[in-house]
Amino acid sequence: MLNSSKTLIDLQNEFQQLLSGITALDEGAMTSIQEHLDSLTKPQNSLGQLEIIVKQLGGIQQSAHPKINKKAVLLMAGDHGVVAEGVSAFPQEVTPQMVYNFLNGGAAINVLTRHAGAEVVCTDVGVAFPLEPAELMRRRVANGTRNMAKGPAMTTAEALQALLVGAEVAREAIAGGVNLLATGDMGIGNTTPSSAIVAFYSKLPISDVVGRGTGINDAGLTLKQAVIKKALEVNKPDPEDALDVLAKIGGLEIAAIAGAILEAAAKHVPIIIDGFISTAGAIIAAKLCPLSNAYMIPSHDSVEIGHRAALQLLGLEPMINLNMRLGEGTGAALCFHLVEASIRILEEMATFTDAGVSEKNK
Amino acid sequence: MLNSSKTLIDLQNEFQQLLSGITALDEGAMTSIQEHLDSLTKPQNSLGQLEIIVKQLGGIQQSAHPKINKKAVLLMAGDHGVVAEGVSAFPQEVTPQMVYNFLNGGAAINVLTRHAGAEVVCTDVGVAFPLEPAELMRRRVANGTRNMAKGPAMTTAEALQALLVGAEVAREAIAGGVNLLATGDMGIGNTTPSSAIVAFYSKLPISDVVGRGTGINDAGLTLKQAVIKKALEVNKPDPEDALDVLAKIGGLEIAAIAGAILEAAAKHVPIIIDGFISTAGAIIAAKLCPLSNAYMIPSHDSVEIGHRAALQLLGLEPMINLNMRLGEGTGAALCFHLVEASIRILEEMATFTDAGVSEKNK
Repeated sequence: MLNSSKTLIDLQNEFQQLLSGITALDEGAMTSIQEHLDSLTKPQNSLGQLEIIVKQLGGIQQSAHPKINKKAVLLMAGDHGVVAEGVSAFPQEVTPQMVYNFLNGGAAINVLTRHAGAEVVCTDVGVAFPLEPAELMRRRVANGTRNMAKGPAMTTAEALQALLVGAEVAREAIAGGVNLLATGDMGIGNTTPSSAIVAFYSKLPISDVVGRGTGINDAGLTLKQAVIKKALEVNKPDPEDALDVLAKIGGLEIAAIAGAILEAAAKHVPIIIDGFISTAGAIIAAKLCPLSNAYMIPSHDSVEIGHRAALQLLGLEPMINLNMRLGEGTGAALCFHLVEASIRILEEMATFTDAGVSEKNK
Repeated sequence: MLNSSKTLIDLQNEFQQLLSGITALDEGAMTSIQEHLDSLTKPQNSLGQLEIIVKQLGGIQQSAHPKINKKAVLLMAGDHGVVAEGVSAFPQEVTPQMVYNFLNGGAAINVLTRHAGAEVVCTDVGVAFPLEPAELMRRRVANGTRNMAKGPAMTTAEALQALLVGAEVAREAIAGGVNLLATGDMGIGNTTPSSAIVAFYSKLPISDVVGRGTGINDAGLTLKQAVIKKALEVNKPDPEDALDVLAKIGGLEIAAIAGAILEAAAKHVPIIIDGFISTAGAIIAAKLCPLSNAYMIPSHDSVEIGHRAALQLLGLEPMINLNMRLGEGTGAALCFHLVEASIRILEEMATFTDAGVSEKNK
């Protein structure tokens, strides 16, 4: 377990320091990149989001020639007390079982990161079962959250600790040379707090943002909606205080995802946001520090019905749509290839002048 | 130029032989793959289209363990007499200029295929300008099509020749070891015949399927719509005869794309369909031989407004959406990575039993 000798004030100070390091993108680099893109042998803007992404990368890295050296998915694992209400199709012990699967390289995220030439960093932020060896639990903030249908999922101190764990994991990856990050999640029941966060901020009817997660049936879906409604009523999160929202109706891995995003932004590193759970974490990050939004790269369009509304809260348009609903960072991992493609377009295409190609009719 | 000593009967016989070699997918291989996918450590079907694609690959390759060895984009180039009506934003000499750009490796498709570890095979099926050396023109069927606003774009013999050129190019690539193909196009003005084909088969209002191509303005768009309306009225293609449709309102590169698709199907090779022009070619292929539809893998969702309607005619759902509108095969090239990912999922993920992960609650 994490050393918890820090006081709430210590944690708050550390967190404020993280936020204060986040700045806006470099407009100069973005303008240079746009000018070069417009000289390349293609109709202007015809490579759409690839052009937007490479500009964003330049703005983030403060360079007209952004580079990707090393890539990693930060996979945050945590459990949820709300599973006691029967909101998930899978038993809770799947969370630790999947952690071992990640460590052994057998899960979908392992396959897709290998395919992308990236690594997976799996962190236990709050699994509810013991892991062996105990070293695996060194960043665990709590043995899962409490049942948010009956009260706050976390204390403020726990939420801050989990945010800072996420930031620390990102900081270590960046120190190791990673300069393109992605978020991932594992936690049986975690579409429930994610749906609660999206319902709370989007103000949409709960039925519009609560989906089937790993595959609950109709009765399960009705129950899940009722549980989320109750959690919102019982906790009454403060819309002006994202930390309050996170603590009351979030999750430990959701907090860590938000923290990783904030650290990436502070370190000028782009971060690809995976599906529904990651996007809920990203919403918390953007509410805690709106400048962090510009460091986020969208990935896929999840089957989970609240995902679109969640992306809209951030102004993100997904790049791929494969009807996936797995989490783990799998959608984000598939997008590393596209982000890298955007840089190769900038650096390798011929210009109209070089290639002797005529430009558009006036 | 192509040797044109063959009679129309010769061409028709050769083409019928191509069609007769196309069979349905192997259901047995697909069932085996589905069973294995359902044993892997993920909620069933949670990898969405990745699972569907790997099943399709198995059905095409007639194997429960499909493999990708070598990948290529078949880029077909041709010009269009209809540009005389003023339907394009770029001058026609851009077609040969871009052919040289492809051969020199400076175009977007060169960059994206290098990134994907694939090759580009560029074929002049009907450019309207001389190319040097003359060897580059050895498969040219005609110096561009005729103006379809005034009569048929091609003769039946020309359309058949261009279909067979496409088939031959695909056959050579497959003989060279390529077992994942993609289609690409280059031809100033080619969104006009493509829109005509999509309007004709979808029966949608012309304004719903005619877009801005490389970037015409509002007046250009109105003109383009009127030209397409006129081409349909002047030519009256026979809806029961796709070869008639292709000859009258198609293009030489569109015919070659259709021919490449049919050859891929006959040789049990999957083929990724690029954007709007490729999809128009794919519609012709599917009308000529409905069984070929099952060999097509969708790629991206183009900005060109008729693309969605075109994909719907084929029952294809795009995998990526990057707001691209470049052609050349660029959208398809970005999907090689996703198709390969689907095979790695099948072959590398742990099963529930192997990983000791609990299955879904009953």
